[in-house]
Parts: sequence; structure tokens; C-alpha cells
Amino acid sequence: MNKKPNILVTNDDGISSPGIKSLIEVTGKYGNLTVIAPDKPMSGVGHAITMRKPIIIEAVTHYNGISSWKCSGTPVDCVKFGLANILKEKPQLVVSGINHGSNASINALYSGTVAAAIEGCLEGISSIAFSLTNWEEDADMTITKKVVKHVIEKVLEHDLPKGILLNVNVPDVAEKDFKGIMICRQARIYWHERFIEEVDDDGNKMYWLSGEFSHNDKREDTDQWAIENNYAAIVPLQIDLTAHHLISHFKKFELL
Amino acid sequence: MNKKPNILVTNDDGISSPGIKSLIEVTGKYGNLTVIAPDKPMSGVGHAITMRKPIIIEAVTHYNGISSWKCSGTPVDCVKFGLANILKEKPQLVVSGINHGSNASINALYSGTVAAAIEGCLEGISSIAFSLTNWEEDADMTITKKVVKHVIEKVLEHDLPKGILLNVNVPDVAEKDFKGIMICRQARIYWHERFIEEVDDDGNKMYWLSGEFSHNDKREDTDQWAIENNYAAIVPLQIDLTAHHLISHFKKFELL
Repeated sequence: MNKKPNILVTNDDGISSPGIKSLIEVTGKYGNLTVIAPDKPMSGVGHAITMRKPIIIEAVTHYNGISSWKCSGTPVDCVKFGLANILKEKPQLVVSGINHGSNASINALYSGTVAAAIEGCLEGISSIAFSLTNWEEDADMTITKKVVKHVIEKVLEHDLPKGILLNVNVPDVAEKDFKGIMICRQARIYWHERFIEEVDDDGNKMYWLSGEFSHNDKREDTDQWAIENNYAAIVPLQIDLTAHHLISHFKKFELL
Repeated sequence: MNKKPNILVTNDDGISSPGIKSLIEVTGKYGNLTVIAPDKPMSGVGHAITMRKPIIIEAVTHYNGISSWKCSGTPVDCVKFGLANILKEKPQLVVSGINHGSNASINALYSGTVAAAIEGCLEGISSIAFSLTNWEEDADMTITKKVVKHVIEKVLEHDLPKGILLNVNVPDVAEKDFKGIMICRQARIYWHERFIEEVDDDGNKMYWLSGEFSHNDKREDTDQWAIENNYAAIVPLQIDLTAHHLISHFKKFELL
């Protein structure tokens, strides 16, 4: 008898977000789930961990019959705690999302959703981050759920190479316009910040982060091109940040 | 007449930490500094940005005659705000640190210090993160300051390749034992988490993140090996996370 794989599910939008509900719905067909997710929205926390205070974990009954927990910490805390204290053995898969909003291109670096998958990958587990390029709570998840299903089947079948995770972004398009899945590289697109000033009742200035996405990397092999052209984008990301190809270049510097 | 370069200085330990004071002392000899750093310790915040509330920026007089600001946000917020609202033109250098504690190996991913340098690099600026492998406030910065001086001179002379930053870790050793600087790769060492349980007065359980550094990657070309053997380690890091070498591998998967 084949044992169903154990799957850890998390996100950065919080335990009650529609995105994680959809992810649970699809992944539940493939394995025994454990859900551990932030108790509040945590977008943009990147790979933050909680070091200067303790985290609080509570069992929740959000998802019928599924071991589910909310956590006062970050998505990375969720993965760490889930693996260390909740799951009895290493799961076969860590899935994170479905994020409400794009994590394509440089957004991967700021995203708590992607960071959770990076953390799973660090632990030697096949890990995938899923995002839909629509920020709305009531976004239509139909296509995304199909993509999740397909990717999970493939990854359960093949596993991922060591040190590699998948960052999956799905365009917000009608089913008839969806063109399929592309393997891509991360577009080299960055944010141009613009801070919006606000003055409080005491005359103190405060600044809200805002900005535009600069759009210089127009080639057709990027995740950004894919989602703008109705394809879902899968970027294989690596956790080793070393620029190995430049080690010998830097060795030529005259050192101490 | 050569114009002195503009240098943005930040860290994750906060505007008043001894580490940033040492960094200011050394870099001040090479350029016109602007200091913008968190108003409180921010270790372990990774690439977090502040999205759900505004940030507050205040001028401070910590550093005589140097434009200095404290920021309620993260190290990445500091770099973003500094570049968008404080500096009149793009600086030639972003330096972050000197961090109190190692950011070698996988610590680079959790570190606010390294994230600030990554953010500078995203903006197309030569960026360097400096750390000393000693957590104490009163750590001896003598060797680290020499390393900072040397690395800054080299980088001002050569600039860094596009998309590449330097992660510099300096061992906590006596001057006579220091062996020099090595160009390294990131060691493949991860944390094994152990959460320490605490029960509050109402009987609620809370958990403090703790753990041990697993130590399987023993080869002599890593940053961890370097700092354990009295060398300062420089790892060139890349901001493009794509596993380019695996794009064709994944294209063989049968997709939608």
C-alpha cells in the first residue's frame, strides 16, 4: 500500500486567506496535510525570523480534520516550528501560498510566501511557492488550482534537485485565455521607490512605502513576460547565493 | 580635483551600535557619508520591508557633521528611503554593518545587514555587508576595521560587477593570529531548530527560537572554514536567484 505523503502548508497572507484555502483544497487530494500559517497578514516580511520575542502557536479548527495551527511569527517561523515541533517526520513537500499578488521577478526576494518555500528547501524538502497575480480577496482561483494540481503531481513524481525550489506565478486571466506553463528565469526588474508623506495630528511626518515596477528586462524568457502573456511562470530558484563564476575573478584582487 | 564619493551607511543592529560607529569611522576617510539606520535592533529581519504601516525618519546628531537619520523600519527600508528621499544622487557605495555576529553561510539569508547590501546592489550600487563573528557590544573591532579599509579601497578602485555584492565576515581573533582575507563560497550549513518553551502567568505556552548550526560542509573553500581558521571571508553573492543551469532540466517536465 502506498503511504500518502506528508505535506506542510503555509503562506504569508495568514491562516484565513482564500489563497491558503484553495491550496489546502488541492493538495489535500495528494497527501496528509499539516497547516501552519501566520495569524495575520505577513506580506513583505521576506526571510525574517522572530528572535527578540517568543512566538505563540495555537491549534485552530479552520480546516475540517486537518491538523491546523496559527502562529504569531513569520512564514519562515511557521516552517521552522512545523518541522521542529509539529510534524513527527520530515514531510515530502512544503507548499506556500496561494499568495494574493505576484511574486515574480524581484518580488521573490521580499515575499514571505517564497521565503517559506526557501526555508523548506534549506531543510532538504521539495518546496514550492504559488502566487496569483491578483491582490483581491475574491480573486478567481480556478486556473491557479489547475496549475497547483499539475505542479504538485510532477514534483511528487520527480522530487526537486537538492537546493532548488520552485517559484510559481499564475496570471489572472479567464480560462479561455490561459496559455499554459512556462519554465522561466527571474526577470531583472526592480522597484523604483516613492514614499508617500503623511503628517499625523502632532505634525510628525510619516512615510508609506510605494513605488513603480521598472520594466527594462523585456525578453521573452522571463517570469514577468510569461504572466503578462497569459502563461503561468515557474522559476527554479537556488538557495546558494554564491556567485561561483566570479570566485576566480575576485581572487585576482590583491588581498591582505 | 577628484570628487569624494558618496557612501550610504546602514546596519541592522541600530543607529547606536558600536559596529556602525566603527564602520563610519573607517568609511568616513573615503567619502561623504549619509547614515540611515534602524532606531532599534533588527537582526534576523532578512529582506523584510514595511508595508502595513508608515515609517518614521528622524535626523539624529549621533555622528558629528555627518548627515545621520534613524528609521523605524527595517534595514531594507533604510536603504530604500535613503536612496529615494535623502541622497540627492545615487551613491557610489552602500556599506552595511559592522554586524555584531556572523553572517557567514546560510545566516546571510536571515540577516538584515546582508539584505541592506542586497538592496543597494538591486539599485545598481556597489554594496558590501561587513560582520564580525562576535556578538558582544564591546567586541574588539581592530582587525575588522583593517579589513573594511582594505575592501573599501579595492571596491572604490574596481567597482563590483553588476548584480554582485560582497558578504564579508571577519573572525574574532587577536591581531597576531589573523591570517588574511580569502575569497570563498557560502558554506552549505543550516540551522537545526530547537524551540524553547516558556509558559506565561496565564498558562499560555510560548516558544523562543533557538538551534544548532549543523556542520556537514567541511571543505576548505567556504566562508565558515575561513572564519574558523582565522581568515576573513569574502563571498561574492548574486541577486538573481534563478538556477539557470536547471532551466533546460525543468523544460523536460511535461507541462500543461
